Amino acid sequence: MTAKKSAQHQSGKVKPSHRMVFFVSDGTGITAETLGKGLLSQFEGINFRQMRFPFVDSPEKAADCLLRIREVNEQDGIRPLVIMTMMNPEISAILRQGDALFLDLFDVFIAPLEKELGMHSAHTVGRSHGQSSREYTSRIAAMSFALAHDDGISAADLKNADVILVGVSRCGKTPTSMYLAMQFGLRAANYPLIPEDFERGRLPDTLLPFRGTLFGLTIAPEQLHRIRQERRPDSNYAALETCRREVAAAERMMKREGIEWFDMTSRSIEEIAVQIIQAINKKE
Amino acid sequence: MTAKKSAQHQSGKVKPSHRMVFFVSDGTGITAETLGKGLLSQFEGINFRQMRFPFVDSPEKAADCLLRIREVNEQDGIRPLVIMTMMNPEISAILRQGDALFLDLFDVFIAPLEKELGMHSAHTVGRSHGQSSREYTSRIAAMSFALAHDDGISAADLKNADVILVGVSRCGKTPTSMYLAMQFGLRAANYPLIPEDFERGRLPDTLLPFRGTLFGLTIAPEQLHRIRQERRPDSNYAALETCRREVAAAERMMKREGIEWFDMTSRSIEEIAVQIIQAINKKE
Repeated sequence: MTAKKSAQHQSGKVKPSHRMVFFVSDGTGITAETLGKGLLSQFEGINFRQMRFPFVDSPEKAADCLLRIREVNEQDGIRPLVIMTMMNPEISAILRQGDALFLDLFDVFIAPLEKELGMHSAHTVGRSHGQSSREYTSRIAAMSFALAHDDGISAADLKNADVILVGVSRCGKTPTSMYLAMQFGLRAANYPLIPEDFERGRLPDTLLPFRGTLFGLTIAPEQLHRIRQERRPDSNYAALETCRREVAAAERMMKREGIEWFDMTSRSIEEIAVQIIQAINKKE
Repeated sequence: MTAKKSAQHQSGKVKPSHRMVFFVSDGTGITAETLGKGLLSQFEGINFRQMRFPFVDSPEKAADCLLRIREVNEQDGIRPLVIMTMMNPEISAILRQGDALFLDLFDVFIAPLEKELGMHSAHTVGRSHGQSSREYTSRIAAMSFALAHDDGISAADLKNADVILVGVSRCGKTPTSMYLAMQFGLRAANYPLIPEDFERGRLPDTLLPFRGTLFGLTIAPEQLHRIRQERRPDSNYAALETCRREVAAAERMMKREGIEWFDMTSRSIEEIAVQIIQAINKKE
């Protein structure tokens, strides 16, 4: 049966409905997994079953991984996909003894970069993919800032914020702030716009000195209603009517105050974060 | 001068000390940037100046980007590196009219995947790289959980935690929890071990029912001292002697209670997070 399945696949006549995917790395494997999932999302109708193999940095660990590749061949009757970032070619050679489609992100790009830059790459593991130590420290400091300035908790050193997000409760300010801090090292504060602000008809006094770093978030009232319902079911706070009124008042205020805003309704936090960075760069 | 520099580079005799790098994408560009930085970290001694071009999803935006490629050629006398994820080949063709080293992550991997899977890729933008909507929702819920359970704030539904991190104050519990939530969708709580716990000689009562999900973090006392100094300079809390005592007591307690722990001292949060996930998987 196994042999038959495999033969069918090789003839290209059968599209198997599931496929095993390994994310393998001698580091954390986060880069391989992130890019890999992006690639797989391009192929609909296949159920990709995923397994992570991080820190494959010794011949022994590579041999374990090779064993799993062979097991999958045997059990599924079809070879797995191996999406990997392996800096050490000797260790990756061990994996490649198995039958799989190997897509090695480093392998493919290091060679053209070496040629272009006229030098050899370090080919060493241990540098975290994508950040110098200074960058790393600033990301941690930014996260600490974002946590200390979540939901208007502290106005103490808002002047040090790279960005201050405003918007109604539960529109997505907190995760967006955290993402800006973690991914981009931005000191992101956030501050809720509440009914009292709308009644007064102007921004909270605390924010007035920092107009230059304010950006707004908004969201469709129906979606806000669903989110608030989960938090406080059947409350006045969660009522669709309340959500409609608050969102409309917040948008009016942001418009009047000249605050650029972004709509979370059908966008991911990653997308909004990048749009905010673009807007900050434009201002500078 | 420009022509001379360019000629020198082409003859391969001069390694320029800086190089412009564009991260271009029709999405957020986060994947291109993350992998790109990992690749560049392999080449030491070159000052890579980086620019992001996210959401390049129209011929007009591609033309703007092409203009910048040409400007860099003109000003630097050497062509830039363009690291990109472009799903639409027509738009990427516009960029490729410029002179640059183009490394397109999708381009290189989509073709072998199509062959392997026996189907065409969707080649569409808009799917966020790397997550289905369900995954996305669970990541947001996990972040919300992590925030609500940071630093032992609430013990309300600790039973729903996928993981509870324990350790002394400022050892890295908070950013690790946030990262586990944001990147992997884990409901990660964290709980500080404080001098009172060490005097009593046992875990806080709150945690006793959840031994199965407890993991520890530790850190070298010298590093903890530096971190605490920044927060409360010259306090007893920050004193090296205090840090030594607390770290030793915390490690003794974790050992006695059979809690597996990880050392943050020379590891990044990403690395620790992946190790924690491996440890969770082993338990299951």
